[in-house]
Amino acid sequence: MTDTLIRNRPCELSAVDAAKAIAAGQLTSEGLVKSCLERIEERDADVQAWAWLDTAHALEQARAADAGPVSGPLHGVPVALKDIIDAYGMPTGFNSTIYPGYIPDADSACAALIRKSGGIILGKTVTTEFANRHPGPTRNPLDPERTPGGSSQGSAAAVADFQVPLSIGTQTSGSIIRPAAYCGVVGYKPSFGEVSRVGVKEQSGSLDTLGLIGRSTGDVELLRAVVTGIPYEPVAPSGFGITVALCRPPEWNKATAEARADIEETAELFRAEGAEVVELDLPTELFGEWLNDHRRIANFEASRNFAHEKTHHADKISKALWEGRIVDGARCPIEDYIASQRKAERMRAWMDERFEGFDTILTLSTAGEATVGLADTGSATFNSLWTLLYTPCISLPSGKGPAGLPLAVQLVGRRFEDEKLFAIASSLEHALKG
Amino acid sequence: MTDTLIRNRPCELSAVDAAKAIAAGQLTSEGLVKSCLERIEERDADVQAWAWLDTAHALEQARAADAGPVSGPLHGVPVALKDIIDAYGMPTGFNSTIYPGYIPDADSACAALIRKSGGIILGKTVTTEFANRHPGPTRNPLDPERTPGGSSQGSAAAVADFQVPLSIGTQTSGSIIRPAAYCGVVGYKPSFGEVSRVGVKEQSGSLDTLGLIGRSTGDVELLRAVVTGIPYEPVAPSGFGITVALCRPPEWNKATAEARADIEETAELFRAEGAEVVELDLPTELFGEWLNDHRRIANFEASRNFAHEKTHHADKISKALWEGRIVDGARCPIEDYIASQRKAERMRAWMDERFEGFDTILTLSTAGEATVGLADTGSATFNSLWTLLYTPCISLPSGKGPAGLPLAVQLVGRRFEDEKLFAIASSLEHALKG
Repeated sequence: MTDTLIRNRPCELSAVDAAKAIAAGQLTSEGLVKSCLERIEERDADVQAWAWLDTAHALEQARAADAGPVSGPLHGVPVALKDIIDAYGMPTGFNSTIYPGYIPDADSACAALIRKSGGIILGKTVTTEFANRHPGPTRNPLDPERTPGGSSQGSAAAVADFQVPLSIGTQTSGSIIRPAAYCGVVGYKPSFGEVSRVGVKEQSGSLDTLGLIGRSTGDVELLRAVVTGIPYEPVAPSGFGITVALCRPPEWNKATAEARADIEETAELFRAEGAEVVELDLPTELFGEWLNDHRRIANFEASRNFAHEKTHHADKISKALWEGRIVDGARCPIEDYIASQRKAERMRAWMDERFEGFDTILTLSTAGEATVGLADTGSATFNSLWTLLYTPCISLPSGKGPAGLPLAVQLVGRRFEDEKLFAIASSLEHALKG
Repeated sequence: MTDTLIRNRPCELSAVDAAKAIAAGQLTSEGLVKSCLERIEERDADVQAWAWLDTAHALEQARAADAGPVSGPLHGVPVALKDIIDAYGMPTGFNSTIYPGYIPDADSACAALIRKSGGIILGKTVTTEFANRHPGPTRNPLDPERTPGGSSQGSAAAVADFQVPLSIGTQTSGSIIRPAAYCGVVGYKPSFGEVSRVGVKEQSGSLDTLGLIGRSTGDVELLRAVVTGIPYEPVAPSGFGITVALCRPPEWNKATAEARADIEETAELFRAEGAEVVELDLPTELFGEWLNDHRRIANFEASRNFAHEKTHHADKISKALWEGRIVDGARCPIEDYIASQRKAERMRAWMDERFEGFDTILTLSTAGEATVGLADTGSATFNSLWTLLYTPCISLPSGKGPAGLPLAVQLVGRRFEDEKLFAIASSLEHALKG
């Protein structure tokens, strides 16, 4: 199977297999990148995942990789960056008209770490405006009438459509997990603080988290090692001698019946494989206002972080961003911001302690399948809590909805126990396929 | 007194008085900026506080302020930015040769907030290389043989020397409090998270904090309101019906006898004014390794944050930065980084709880007077703990050392209680002058 892909459709190879094939001399980076570019050429009019792509520049990087020695675990493998993440010599556009012709002088930290590991920066994928809600043109590759989700919309769509094996996005509310779920790929939001945000446009310093998207947990794990700057040592699957906490947050009834049924089936699968499944309730006195706490923190910070755009380019900011985060955040008294920050810290401490009693949390990735239309990138209701809690999250495709589009479940780990989460996700991924 | 300064030496006015005089039509921004520029002209060869200054551009901003209506509490008042903080149209140099000719496309958030409040960005003040240890040419304005401290060296020296009333710097270890103390001015490190770091070169995302420098607590408080994006409402002094916790950290014996005597005198002053003074001991089991915890967090993050410079410009990085943070951080296993992050969180929770028992902590700002020579910007031993703890800190000049240079004390507040800290600092400042 892998050999056939190497010969005929390298763009469909996993990143792990592609890196192995390149290191073994069975495939060139140029061959892989060409295959990705052909796929893009074939599909771009429908999917529109790319904000910037220079075919010649991509091939030049690939040929340089082929000419040199294997420099790291990602040698010769292309990665896409959400268009709020800088890469030297490539324009960053932010899906805004405020920065025409902006070409960064420096790589973001993740771009430099990718290059250092031998990876290719294939191009820049479409973002919603400044990673907020105003959408770009990207369509869900599985159904062009539907949103791919947001804000990391091009990053998810390009990976799902075999245009690139790996991509990087960001999550302030649900911007990694939701598009990954909607497009049927694997999304990973690391523990807050583990991956450098240097060279990434900031929305909320307390919440913004770089996230990784791939077509398997193994591929995402490889990219995690690279951008975290740690040795690449794939974890062994955990197996099912574990305790899983099924968490139905208060917004449970906003999910579709099919999504709720899908997660119950996943819980059943865990049980059938031997895991213990317990219930996790979030106490109302601490978590009852979490959506509001998340909103206050995100908006207070965003209204200051966008001070340049607000002061010098107010007319070029979308209504969605202006009337959403910016006005609301400017009106938020600092006392309210502080109260929510303090509450978030208590929530994090509570959750950290509760993790003594189980190995992972099983919850929804989204309310259901990707919604129809491109104007609304979907709801972050099932994601923002975990962003606020700083916990690592992995979204895995777990079934199909009534329209035949992917449903997904979200596994949540204890903060800073990302490797354990990958071990569990890898076992669940295998079981879901079986 | 104020009237005389308005007429003869506006550069010596406090920011609060200057803003009032401008709003009242007694002084023009152009007059104030000209006076600052004359002072710089007179002193720059000795002090060398500026990395970039364009006289014509500064005067142009001042004339624009004079031509328009009063737009905010800082209207017409010049502020200096440490040369790792972006301002639109002004080069940022980072005291490095890696970014020649880099002129940012956007204001940092603080620069935009200053402009929105009517303030003038006078120019860029000297930083150590990337706010680390490799020094710039700045001399202590009170003794040219001595360091002004670092890393915000130009920011502190320019304010102390009446070249500008206010400046902004950053602190990852002790880079605001130490230079402010060495130069005899007021330094303020806000609660972590309150001031946006957008457009500021990052060293450690978990520690970097914007800090403000002025010649009085009142001036710093004005700038705090502006860069925090909150209404400017000066706090009333607390008076002395308060409990002060004198904290002698484990490194106490590294301070000079004079510095230790000075802080005991300040404690005595608090008592004489009516405050209760208690002792605060830091338990060894939690705080015994804090220097190491700070180092691991700062270095692990810096070695990733400088991935661009490390990957593409290794030959242009100083030995101090390379052999200090970068190599050490690259070698730090992620498990050790996580252990220190978890410990830091426990320290913060412990400290937050302890603040139930007192109103402020009184501790040292530095080990003593500014040290002789420019190669070493001094030790952050008495600062890094409070950076790690996310608490607001204010350094106040409190006496003179054996060489006649300033000694300073540091007041520390509970995280997110910055206004209370200003109220106490204002009372102490008054008592110290009395």
